[in-house]
Amino acid sequence: MNKPEVPDFLKNIRIVLARPSHPGNIGSAARAMKTMGLSRLVLVSPKCFPDPEAVTLASGAADLLDNALVVETLSEALAGVSIACALTSRRRELSTPLSTPREVTPELLSRAASGEQIAIVFGNETFGLSIEEVECCNRLITIPGNPDYFSLNLAMAVQVVTYELFSQTGFKVDHLREEREPATLDEVEGFCRHLDDTMQHIGYFRRRNSDRLKRRMRTLFNRAALQREEVDILRGFLKQVQRAHDGAALPDDSAGA
Amino acid sequence: MNKPEVPDFLKNIRIVLARPSHPGNIGSAARAMKTMGLSRLVLVSPKCFPDPEAVTLASGAADLLDNALVVETLSEALAGVSIACALTSRRRELSTPLSTPREVTPELLSRAASGEQIAIVFGNETFGLSIEEVECCNRLITIPGNPDYFSLNLAMAVQVVTYELFSQTGFKVDHLREEREPATLDEVEGFCRHLDDTMQHIGYFRRRNSDRLKRRMRTLFNRAALQREEVDILRGFLKQVQRAHDGAALPDDSAGA
Repeated sequence: MNKPEVPDFLKNIRIVLARPSHPGNIGSAARAMKTMGLSRLVLVSPKCFPDPEAVTLASGAADLLDNALVVETLSEALAGVSIACALTSRRRELSTPLSTPREVTPELLSRAASGEQIAIVFGNETFGLSIEEVECCNRLITIPGNPDYFSLNLAMAVQVVTYELFSQTGFKVDHLREEREPATLDEVEGFCRHLDDTMQHIGYFRRRNSDRLKRRMRTLFNRAALQREEVDILRGFLKQVQRAHDGAALPDDSAGA
Repeated sequence: MNKPEVPDFLKNIRIVLARPSHPGNIGSAARAMKTMGLSRLVLVSPKCFPDPEAVTLASGAADLLDNALVVETLSEALAGVSIACALTSRRRELSTPLSTPREVTPELLSRAASGEQIAIVFGNETFGLSIEEVECCNRLITIPGNPDYFSLNLAMAVQVVTYELFSQTGFKVDHLREEREPATLDEVEGFCRHLDDTMQHIGYFRRRNSDRLKRRMRTLFNRAALQREEVDILRGFLKQVQRAHDGAALPDDSAGA
């Protein structure tokens, strides 16, 4: 199975870091973005940039740092943008609509797919976004979390939001799945009958309620989502059980077999 | 509005780090967990633990490190667990079901809520989980991401999975929303008629298609989800426009007003 492609329209979503203090966070944010298929990083008045620590923490995502746009003001960062989401973890005295990343993502993806420019704006590590910065945006988003201990570092917040975006692109993980050949219902039933016979044959039902035991085993093996190869292994085993019981068996791996 | 509570049953979900090399990652993982309402950390043969770097990076989550269970083998870490999810980012030759965190979370939460013990198992930073470790688990989970650059650090992976768990607990962010008093439809219509009158009054409709303009303004203000207070501000403004046009206006803030 071929690897699926990252949707091209994710290039219309930019991540904006407003006044970041720590270059390490810029690097980690770039790594988080690239892992989730995003590429456009905009930095508003970063304290130290470029900086070797950013490159170190970006790991293989240093290309995002090379291509990052560095501007003086948030307004410049938002040029051409139709939806700007301000990340906040506190209550704001604004009637701007507040939603979670999960709630807002469908709108962001569908508008990015139709060619609009979208921005997600993260504030300074210590102070968050100023009221003036929030007022440049037309959406508020907040990541749900423990109200008694909410301590999401800047790069972690970028990771969560970009994960949420990527996870809703419809990207499938099928290329990581083993190819399966599920047993059909009649193959499972054939195995169950073989199991019934074997239990009967070796005297397991004596003084037991055979109907109940058989039913229980059918339920188990129907629930277990048996693969065809597993049915073959189990039936091979049952054959050997019957042979061993009849005293006719030689071990499969004995030299004389 | 009161802060909502973190569901108590999250204590039935443990995060297991198998053979972590870097104490900083253990600290960051603890911080990620606590931010998402989880508290039970289990460490299997950590390279350095306890360690001051773990405490530094745990920030306010050092209590999770103090209470962490340290064991020798993954089997010990999984004592009493009925679902163990192994995190993987590569294809495994196993017929264990593979799903995303989003897909598996409903089952994990409902089973944790009914008192079962759940584990999510993360491998070593460099090598991931061994085949023997994966075989101790009955689920495989994978975080979807860029197939050409998938570089999720250990603590970031813990953040994504715990965010996914928390986000599906039904926790509401309403306590961060401003209380709103939405305008009713008739209040919006009253404002729109006031706007029509004002446009008429000051001669804005001359040589323009007034029906089309009025309809466009109604659509805009119905879409804008007006708040009652905003209707009041806008109608106050329209009154002033009419007064100013009639030459009867004094600036609101003039000394002689």
